[in-house]
Amino acid sequence: MKKLINAPATVLADALRGVEAAHPELEVDHENRLVLRPTAGTEGQVALVSGGGSGHEPLHSGFVGPGMLAAACAGEIFTSPTPDQMLAAATKVNTGAGVLFIVKNYTGDVLNFEMAADLAKDEGIETASVIVADDVAVQDSTWTAGRRGIGGTVIVEKVAGAAAAEGRSLAEVAEVAEKVSKASRSMGVALTSCTVPAAGKPSFDLPEDEIEMGVGIHGEPGRKRVPLASAHDIAGELVASITDDLDFTGTPVIALLTGLGGTPLIELYVVYAEVAAALKERGIEVARSLVGDYITSLDMAGCSLTLTQADDETLRLWDAPVNTTGLRWGA
Amino acid sequence: MKKLINAPATVLADALRGVEAAHPELEVDHENRLVLRPTAGTEGQVALVSGGGSGHEPLHSGFVGPGMLAAACAGEIFTSPTPDQMLAAATKVNTGAGVLFIVKNYTGDVLNFEMAADLAKDEGIETASVIVADDVAVQDSTWTAGRRGIGGTVIVEKVAGAAAAEGRSLAEVAEVAEKVSKASRSMGVALTSCTVPAAGKPSFDLPEDEIEMGVGIHGEPGRKRVPLASAHDIAGELVASITDDLDFTGTPVIALLTGLGGTPLIELYVVYAEVAAALKERGIEVARSLVGDYITSLDMAGCSLTLTQADDETLRLWDAPVNTTGLRWGA
Repeated sequence: MKKLINAPATVLADALRGVEAAHPELEVDHENRLVLRPTAGTEGQVALVSGGGSGHEPLHSGFVGPGMLAAACAGEIFTSPTPDQMLAAATKVNTGAGVLFIVKNYTGDVLNFEMAADLAKDEGIETASVIVADDVAVQDSTWTAGRRGIGGTVIVEKVAGAAAAEGRSLAEVAEVAEKVSKASRSMGVALTSCTVPAAGKPSFDLPEDEIEMGVGIHGEPGRKRVPLASAHDIAGELVASITDDLDFTGTPVIALLTGLGGTPLIELYVVYAEVAAALKERGIEVARSLVGDYITSLDMAGCSLTLTQADDETLRLWDAPVNTTGLRWGA
Repeated sequence: MKKLINAPATVLADALRGVEAAHPELEVDHENRLVLRPTAGTEGQVALVSGGGSGHEPLHSGFVGPGMLAAACAGEIFTSPTPDQMLAAATKVNTGAGVLFIVKNYTGDVLNFEMAADLAKDEGIETASVIVADDVAVQDSTWTAGRRGIGGTVIVEKVAGAAAAEGRSLAEVAEVAEKVSKASRSMGVALTSCTVPAAGKPSFDLPEDEIEMGVGIHGEPGRKRVPLASAHDIAGELVASITDDLDFTGTPVIALLTGLGGTPLIELYVVYAEVAAALKERGIEVARSLVGDYITSLDMAGCSLTLTQADDETLRLWDAPVNTTGLRWGA
């Protein structure tokens, strides 16, 4: 295992020190392993809290800031954060308008966020939760009942964050988040495994001439292993899998193509060219797009495509200003 | 070789189609392999043109836009663009105030930009050039007389781009660029080789327990091979190499830690924590920082650190608005 780390046991703590050093505009709570934005200026706004296992950066800490998350809870690599962390986050960011938990659909995350919601209720903090389960690859998986949550999470966090910044109520922000979550579908492909630091070896074996279609972001099995194919064919299969699952014609879409951590940007653009062509062929109109590393799987080579049906409200909220380390644009 | 491509021969053309599809705000000239911003609104401003071999994305095409480059010329992977491409770029973006070429110090790039300057002069386009040669690792290298140009280029492009947006003259913008170039020092480390698509195999062999300190962004030899070390020790050596070369005390610095394409963000933050601590120990004040993939080497695992001495003017120009796909912030 060749990684830029000090020791497997300290990766998360060390990375949080790095986040703190690089981004003085953010607060890092090392004890609770939280990344937070200042609450000043957000009074009366619903606060969005997300989190999950580490190793998917910039998700979630890279999406903390004005217009998006109020706090991100970092679990150990590929391990859910605890209810205590989530409660600490909710307590710190709640300004009285309540807290929306955005939860990727993995069993540990779901249970822990549920428990955190109960604990928050005891503390008098109103919460709502939205589960993101956008991965069309498989129905159930290693750590998931139902579909896994992947790239759609980024889009839910952005759009719901903009709704919160407008001062909408908790019920209204939760409704927007739910709408975007239900309107999102994703599918990924791995060219290589990732290596979890504590394991010290690749999570799975993948021969030099094979790829895994529908891989999970923790290396969970996908749909099938197939011979290494062209970007054209891979993009075509990602698009087909997604559009077979939900009809994306007749409404503008937001398209997100994320690298999985070990794939360089030039390859992502090669894939995106094919994605755009495949969508055009199907009569699907891409209204907004993002290409880069947004939700990763440590050093895995590969990519994941997300499409979200975007009505006028979703597009308007997507375009609203955001100022995080991972997504940033002005009005 | 496992890559998300169609064929080694079409990587650049395909990636440019992807850039065009993903970023409708940019113009892509496929014939000349240029990425350009619209000239509307930049009348009377010096236009910055950079470029170089592909494989270092987001450099340079990711830095085209308001507040930074007017155009980027894309060569084949690790191969200089041609003087004709550079001339085409200069012709397209010149609004009468002249063109500044920003050139990484590699022999092919330097010669071709010189020739382009001659051709531009014949066409009545005034040009100036700044050479970036910030890599402290080695004096001469495989494709370089003198030092190689690496991460300092990003900082030169940002600061000079802001000076150009202020409407300064070509001589003034060139002076700012020269100042920032001279104030920048960099050093990188490779954990793995990259693989050039047309070669189909790693550019060099690096045993599982060794790293290459001072590697070039095309895989050129660095200073030495050493056993795999902790992030703490690697960061310490990068900082020592840079600060042994130039005194960074007494002036604020801009710090850029870039991944080389195959290293995930969580590892970069681990390294940055150590970089920040090492700088603090030396009494060096980091005024601004960037951590992420800014100048890469295809799929190479590793990172590169750049420090730039930043006086008040440099900091002010650094903070000026920029709107590119690779760097974006408001006023």
